[in-house]
Amino acid sequence: MAKYKSKHGYEGLLIVIEGTDGSGKSTQISKLKRWIEDQSYGAMVSEWKTSKFIADAINDAKDRNLLNATTFSLLYAADFADRLEQVIIPALKAGFVVILDRYIYTAYARDVVRGHNIEWLKNLYDYAPEPDMVFYLDVPVEILLKRIIGTTGLDYWESGRDIGLSSDFYKSFQIYQGKCLEEYHKMIEEYGFIALDGTLTEKEIHKKIISQVKNILEV
Amino acid sequence: MAKYKSKHGYEGLLIVIEGTDGSGKSTQISKLKRWIEDQSYGAMVSEWKTSKFIADAINDAKDRNLLNATTFSLLYAADFADRLEQVIIPALKAGFVVILDRYIYTAYARDVVRGHNIEWLKNLYDYAPEPDMVFYLDVPVEILLKRIIGTTGLDYWESGRDIGLSSDFYKSFQIYQGKCLEEYHKMIEEYGFIALDGTLTEKEIHKKIISQVKNILEV
Repeated sequence: MAKYKSKHGYEGLLIVIEGTDGSGKSTQISKLKRWIEDQSYGAMVSEWKTSKFIADAINDAKDRNLLNATTFSLLYAADFADRLEQVIIPALKAGFVVILDRYIYTAYARDVVRGHNIEWLKNLYDYAPEPDMVFYLDVPVEILLKRIIGTTGLDYWESGRDIGLSSDFYKSFQIYQGKCLEEYHKMIEEYGFIALDGTLTEKEIHKKIISQVKNILEV
Repeated sequence: MAKYKSKHGYEGLLIVIEGTDGSGKSTQISKLKRWIEDQSYGAMVSEWKTSKFIADAINDAKDRNLLNATTFSLLYAADFADRLEQVIIPALKAGFVVILDRYIYTAYARDVVRGHNIEWLKNLYDYAPEPDMVFYLDVPVEILLKRIIGTTGLDYWESGRDIGLSSDFYKSFQIYQGKCLEEYHKMIEEYGFIALDGTLTEKEIHKKIISQVKNILEV
């Protein structure tokens, strides 16, 4: 299926879509999945944080606003390790194109903003398979803010309110997301992200994604 | 309270009792706690794996025999990070003698036996405060086996049955605990454990522990 030997050595392909909440990831992911299936390949989507029993622990702790940054970080890592073993690797072995809605880069951004050392984090995730392609949907904070206020509203964690950046919710979101975007931007070069202007139309972004995916998928 | 500057820089003291199940830890811990209280110091005991919400996740997953070694390892680490922040550090700051029933060395032994890289593990726990004193209760596998069969019975995980060492439960326990003991033995020198012969009487072991604790506690 792959045009070249995949980076992780499995039969399938690993495609990551990174971006903050409100960057338009979900729309692009479902469009990409449909397109891949139209080319007669099996595709599946896996989201950051979905293993039920760990998600319960995370949500329970979030509700009680109990967790320190290290515990959080380790719970997400445990969740990822579980999902990797139970879902992602079996799917890759079976030759699926696995589309990941966020990946370890999201953990890096969030945790570095919360004061973790990046080398500690890289070690924590050193068993994560290298993706074949990473798209990054880049959207400026001001536009994210408008989109989110118009839809899901300001989430406590996505506004970084746990780290007390500002008592003003709006301001806290701005500062927190601004810091996360800085971290994503630092990673663009290091990890070879394909950065896309997330303010383009859905159709335009989809077209750009497809043209890149064609480079690694035999169609 | 401490006779010398504690290794972690907090007011209190951190004393670890390490040893496998059946090594007699619990008895020694409650004797030590009582003795410390008799010297008019505050003492508290904290066990490896006690944060409720994470313990639930671990138990739930254990029941379903679902977890791979990495997920397990990370869940224990998350549990420890939580307990450290919520319990251990506040107690140390308040000047307590904190007696820990197992510590990161247990994680090292169990996880190395399950195939983890020791350097990865050391990084995982690099934020753990250095204990002021570590006791290691050394008991040969054959004696552990007799003690455990006579009391709690052969636990699935403590017999390493998750890693398929033998289909014979008795044999599996022997091999698994033997491997863990090897790992503990390797750590004695590296971390300056005070190794104690766990086959002595309760009273003799207690006396040895007290005589060492007197070196770091003003009594």
